[in-house]
Amino acid sequence: MKITVFNTGGTFNKRYNPILGQLEVPTDSMALDAVLKSIHNVQVEIINLISKDSLDITNDDRTFLVNQIQKCEDEAIIVIHGTDTMDLTADFIAQYINNKKVILTGAMIPMSIDSIEATMNFSLALGFLNASVAHGVYVAMHGAVASYEKLKKNRMQGKFLIID
Amino acid sequence: MKITVFNTGGTFNKRYNPILGQLEVPTDSMALDAVLKSIHNVQVEIINLISKDSLDITNDDRTFLVNQIQKCEDEAIIVIHGTDTMDLTADFIAQYINNKKVILTGAMIPMSIDSIEATMNFSLALGFLNASVAHGVYVAMHGAVASYEKLKKNRMQGKFLIID
Amino acid sequence: MKITVFNTGGTFNKRYNPILGQLEVPTDSMALDAVLKSIHNVQVEIINLISKDSLDITNDDRTFLVNQIQKCEDEAIIVIHGTDTMDLTADFIAQYINNKKVILTGAMIPMSIDSIEATMNFSLALGFLNASVAHGVYVAMHGAVASYEKLKKNRMQGKFLIID
Amino acid sequence: MKITVFNTGGTFNKRYNPILGQLEVPTDSMALDAVLKSIHNVQVEIINLISKDSLDITNDDRTFLVNQIQKCEDEAIIVIHGTDTMDLTADFIAQYINNKKVILTGAMIPMSIDSIEATMNFSLALGFLNASVAHGVYVAMHGAVASYEKLKKNRMQGKFLIID
Repeated sequence: MKITVFNTGGTFNKRYNPILGQLEVPTDSMALDAVLKSIHNVQVEIINLISKDSLDITNDDRTFLVNQIQKCEDEAIIVIHGTDTMDLTADFIAQYINNKKVILTGAMIPMSIDSIEATMNFSLALGFLNASVAHGVYVAMHGAVASYEKLKKNRMQGKFLIID
Repeated sequence: MKITVFNTGGTFNKRYNPILGQLEVPTDSMALDAVLKSIHNVQVEIINLISKDSLDITNDDRTFLVNQIQKCEDEAIIVIHGTDTMDLTADFIAQYINNKKVILTGAMIPMSIDSIEATMNFSLALGFLNASVAHGVYVAMHGAVASYEKLKKNRMQGKFLIID
Repeated sequence: MKITVFNTGGTFNKRYNPILGQLEVPTDSMALDAVLKSIHNVQVEIINLISKDSLDITNDDRTFLVNQIQKCEDEAIIVIHGTDTMDLTADFIAQYINNKKVILTGAMIPMSIDSIEATMNFSLALGFLNASVAHGVYVAMHGAVASYEKLKKNRMQGKFLIID
Repeated sequence: MKITVFNTGGTFNKRYNPILGQLEVPTDSMALDAVLKSIHNVQVEIINLISKDSLDITNDDRTFLVNQIQKCEDEAIIVIHGTDTMDLTADFIAQYINNKKVILTGAMIPMSIDSIEATMNFSLALGFLNASVAHGVYVAMHGAVASYEKLKKNRMQGKFLIID
């Protein structure tokens, strides 16, 4: 299997900058690289497309992302995205892409602070892509992989929950 | 979704005992509990069935495990198992179980030493079960989820690799 | 040996709040508690006095801290403090306290993100107090324990450096 | 300040080998290197002298270590050593060296499994050397830095405790 990961930043990637005393979205893929070390049966290409907190993602960013997905030769795509506007970006992608398996994922806690949640979310996406799944736009978070219309962030609880 | 996790021990669970100065297979599920904190959309029941290094797993243990799987009401089952004889146990299960989705997983590095690989392997299984997959016996390791006949440990490299 | 640790907050204690998506100074001493597990020969009393980023520490806070140090029965005192105004608080303490060994310490990286630097800085203070040292106000950071007048934060480099 | 660290192996340095499925004493100083990143005011030279579990340290090893300490230009020396025979090596050094400050330290839990205890023990030694201390042979473990005759491993409890 070959997949492309489009990295748009978000909490998943955040790292602490000791000089500034705050968390930053880096432009690299160090958080993903840590996960890649345990993947031996999938060819993974990481493209650092955008490096933003998801509250700062614009529709221009989304158009750019859709263009990149369209141009991508892989059928299986994972998008790393901040959690706050993951639903908006998923909606946007679903309007334009219908011939690929696109899974958005991210984390509530930076990989650099606690690797378990971020690793789980990414690996849920990867495990799902190992099955024969239909084209579509999905979200992989907190134990679930489901259509982007059914798995949404509950801001009060800080959890992605399946909506019945 | 509701799944049962049968924990048989193995490297996934090992923890360091400072008094004895060595790694031990504990009888609890502390390693799994750490992963469960990030799962909010799946009902997971953990049963600590056997607590052994997989080199010590006997066919009596395997018969006991098969009996437990048969009695289990859940259709989706994850078995945490040591890597050295995961293939033998998978073979054994496949002889007796054909009406469930059984996924064996584990880790080359204890969760307590490096949480990334163990979290990934377990989450691959969970992600795969989120898709509509056929009954069967599978292995989830190192980026892949595949039939137990196709994903095997390469002892020289210390990796589970797909066999063509 | 018996020592009192006055915890005033700062980066040393910061933890990530996934709901708010930011680092917070907690009112507890969880960061110190993690270090205490490895201390078996010193009686350590932790008092959570103030829970602030050090940029928010006021002279009222400093007066309160000095009063607590004066009332404290222990001769050996460690103050956990944010790095940005550690020098101001040390100056302030030195004006009022001359019959105790007061060591200020903290961290550039939260204990919850990377435990090594924070553990080192605290343990430098503890190691220094195991020697026969004179009354005074000291800073323990980045390999050094020295008079508060000689060990200062270099903001450009993000390091505490000895001033010759 | 300039110090030399003689690394003789022991639990402090142990790392997990996933191929062999066991902890090993590596011949490098990766565990110490992680601590060095937070030290900016001390010139530290690390010499990987011996790479053994301390149960395997022989008197030939101890003679070799003493020779290296004698030849070393630094007055302040830290010896990383396994905990099981740290007392024997300290005795041995004390017979031959009386013009230096030699501090033995180590860990009950490998740095690679839990960095807090190992970082603390090393940093206690470093903090103690920041004070004006007499020539002698010391042990730095679990909150204390004391003469090697007074701080000993309690094997039942797995702790180094001050002997009155």
